[in-house]
Amino acid sequence: MTLSSIASVLETGFDSTDIEITGMNALKDATSTEVSFVANSKYIKDIQSTKAAAVIVSASLVEYVPQGCVPLIVENSYWSMAILSKYFAPVIENDELPKAEIGEGTKVSAKAEIANGAKIGKNCTILAHVYIGAEAVVGDNTVIYPNVTIYRDCIVGSDCIIHSNSAIGADGFGFATNNRGEHKKIYQNGNVVIEDDVEIGSNVSVDRAVFGSTLIKKGVRIDNLVQIGHNCEIGEYSVFVAQSGSAGSTKLGRNVVVGGQSAFAGHLEIAPFSTFAARSGVTKNITESGLTFAGFPLMDHKLWLKLQVKIARLLK
Amino acid sequence: MTLSSIASVLETGFDSTDIEITGMNALKDATSTEVSFVANSKYIKDIQSTKAAAVIVSASLVEYVPQGCVPLIVENSYWSMAILSKYFAPVIENDELPKAEIGEGTKVSAKAEIANGAKIGKNCTILAHVYIGAEAVVGDNTVIYPNVTIYRDCIVGSDCIIHSNSAIGADGFGFATNNRGEHKKIYQNGNVVIEDDVEIGSNVSVDRAVFGSTLIKKGVRIDNLVQIGHNCEIGEYSVFVAQSGSAGSTKLGRNVVVGGQSAFAGHLEIAPFSTFAARSGVTKNITESGLTFAGFPLMDHKLWLKLQVKIARLLK
Amino acid sequence: MTLSSIASVLETGFDSTDIEITGMNALKDATSTEVSFVANSKYIKDIQSTKAAAVIVSASLVEYVPQGCVPLIVENSYWSMAILSKYFAPVIENDELPKAEIGEGTKVSAKAEIANGAKIGKNCTILAHVYIGAEAVVGDNTVIYPNVTIYRDCIVGSDCIIHSNSAIGADGFGFATNNRGEHKKIYQNGNVVIEDDVEIGSNVSVDRAVFGSTLIKKGVRIDNLVQIGHNCEIGEYSVFVAQSGSAGSTKLGRNVVVGGQSAFAGHLEIAPFSTFAARSGVTKNITESGLTFAGFPLMDHKLWLKLQVKIARLLK
Repeated sequence: MTLSSIASVLETGFDSTDIEITGMNALKDATSTEVSFVANSKYIKDIQSTKAAAVIVSASLVEYVPQGCVPLIVENSYWSMAILSKYFAPVIENDELPKAEIGEGTKVSAKAEIANGAKIGKNCTILAHVYIGAEAVVGDNTVIYPNVTIYRDCIVGSDCIIHSNSAIGADGFGFATNNRGEHKKIYQNGNVVIEDDVEIGSNVSVDRAVFGSTLIKKGVRIDNLVQIGHNCEIGEYSVFVAQSGSAGSTKLGRNVVVGGQSAFAGHLEIAPFSTFAARSGVTKNITESGLTFAGFPLMDHKLWLKLQVKIARLLK
Repeated sequence: MTLSSIASVLETGFDSTDIEITGMNALKDATSTEVSFVANSKYIKDIQSTKAAAVIVSASLVEYVPQGCVPLIVENSYWSMAILSKYFAPVIENDELPKAEIGEGTKVSAKAEIANGAKIGKNCTILAHVYIGAEAVVGDNTVIYPNVTIYRDCIVGSDCIIHSNSAIGADGFGFATNNRGEHKKIYQNGNVVIEDDVEIGSNVSVDRAVFGSTLIKKGVRIDNLVQIGHNCEIGEYSVFVAQSGSAGSTKLGRNVVVGGQSAFAGHLEIAPFSTFAARSGVTKNITESGLTFAGFPLMDHKLWLKLQVKIARLLK
Repeated sequence: MTLSSIASVLETGFDSTDIEITGMNALKDATSTEVSFVANSKYIKDIQSTKAAAVIVSASLVEYVPQGCVPLIVENSYWSMAILSKYFAPVIENDELPKAEIGEGTKVSAKAEIANGAKIGKNCTILAHVYIGAEAVVGDNTVIYPNVTIYRDCIVGSDCIIHSNSAIGADGFGFATNNRGEHKKIYQNGNVVIEDDVEIGSNVSVDRAVFGSTLIKKGVRIDNLVQIGHNCEIGEYSVFVAQSGSAGSTKLGRNVVVGGQSAFAGHLEIAPFSTFAARSGVTKNITESGLTFAGFPLMDHKLWLKLQVKIARLLK
């Protein structure tokens, strides 16, 4: 899609040299053929150092756009970004892609559906009613139980197990809202990458990234009914107990243990070897590794135990 | 089913003019060919003004039944209602219904199942392992991802997206319990209506109504692993973040924002433009619109923040 | 598998009479042809009275192993048990098993998959995209809605209803962790047994036992998005409201009512006729029956109401 046609879609002026735009990305990650956007003034620093070919920006922030980056000036930059995201969304299935490649020794149920363009490694077991989308990749020795859905472009490693009825790569929860309270979908054009030796329980939702990847690293264990939001990064050997979850863009270090029904707010960084007791509610970064927490608001686990004693006294 | 045969099923006396009964309904909503029931004395007002042809009622409340409405006197009216509900449950699938109608430009995977009597609009995408039940209706341009189940009689609007492994229209959680602690299923003979431009995440459960409809209005956004109980009404452009839920019969106004892991008790009314922080527990009506809440028990969000400060002081 | 080959797999010495081992089991339940293990010193009593043919045990606890029981001495007994569990895991599907038996009057969708060795009773309805695994058994008159997965060896009673997208018998969340923080899967070689007249909602996860059975007794009602961990026992007519759950090995008496989003820690015993208000967090045994609880930490429901009044006063 050319930059001039993007300007036209966004109904904004354009008088620069026209180039072919290959995709959308965050300010930090955008390359010289990608277009980015400034959601709000919190990102001023990122505008100044962006390598994006163009940025969707409001008039009030246009002064921060660096030389050589084309400003696409709009009223509501997040709304305009949402409009544009649809143009970069790949088709769900594509008949013109080659037939799926299935590795030696892999059993695929006749009642599974492997979309064109997918690649499955060796010695996998793909059971009935599994769906593996276009250009998705699965490694070797991986078992995918019935009724699992793996959306297009997602990558699952070797020696993984994904249990029934889990959804890998559904759209992250992204939309812009205008001043009439209406929502506009932000198409989630990234993917999910699951590394080797990961086990995922039943009825789990791991959302695809808006740009880039939601990343589940090597050796992670995810129990049933867990939510992993878009663009999260789950460190090696971390453990999510049932019904816990994380909002988008939170990054966990390795061997983090997340108790049942716990949850993380979005955009956090969690130090490795942190442990969260059941039903912890985490709303701030954890910078020191190896500690144990509980409660909502979150506190040191020992402090939480003390608090319960004080509350018990209150009742006397 | 005739009124006399209903009396016979319920093992109660009957000496009125016999008529054909077309269904069951709540006291308020029942028409002159429907039978209703009085679960308990809380509903005395509703008995007096009901238009139902007949009501299932205990001897102690029979005096409130209006002229022209036939009382069907039983010991445990809720249990008897449960027994009767089965007789009005439609068959799950019906070979005699006409083949499903599929609109122009709509792609249906060969591995999807569209039951007889269903109608799908134009330019939809129905992926593998989707199930769309008898007499269900889907509008135009709607995308239904793999392994979604839409139960019979449910209605999905145009321009909707339903992500993988969600269940639309499973039975609401309804049963009567007798004095031996045994349960009797109340068949859920209503449906789910999803209006236009709604997006529903993966692993979501939206239950069908016991009578009437569970209603998801235009523009609503529902994240993953969310529970919407039977007979709820979710106002336009409302937002449910992951792992939140609502018990049955709660009505939300427009643009209500429900934080992650929050929940509503049943039978509440929530003012429009209310916002609930993550893990709010809502057990009372919200009558003033535009406010922000947190906590369980629920309180004003600012008050909740103050409370956390006080609790922190307790610990010193 | 012979005891000598087990010793060889575990890389430990062996100089006893060799016998054929039929399976693995807990110390208490193991028979004279089974091998057991000692996870930690908490189980010393159980070692002394075990009837197992052999136990996997660390050197420090070997003195407690009774006469006639072969000690298999290893460094990390839980890790070694995990290694061995894989050898006793049955294959997921087995072409050599006889074709599934389908009872008279049962309708099975052409788009359902019933694995070899399964047995379905009379007058059942098995809808599209259902998966029923090897040697699973379903009783009479049971309805299984689309996209339900029933794993191999699981047993579902008569007159049951299982709603869409639920997973019955996925692996319990079990693994050993070594001192490098790596995890080793403990294969879950037990099953799930669901007795008669049980209704299970949509998107529910009931995990299979590591040994023995996860048991859902007669008349239980489970709402949507509920988690039942491995080896739980749910008493007759108990009720789980949406988004609640239980960690593994917890045993509930009959007619326990579990409010929405409530949860039980593992290895608890809960007295019959206990009631838990929404979002209760249960971490201790309940020994007296018929009481009502709330809160996390859990307390008497009336006390919890009082506590809320005191907290409200704190705010003034």
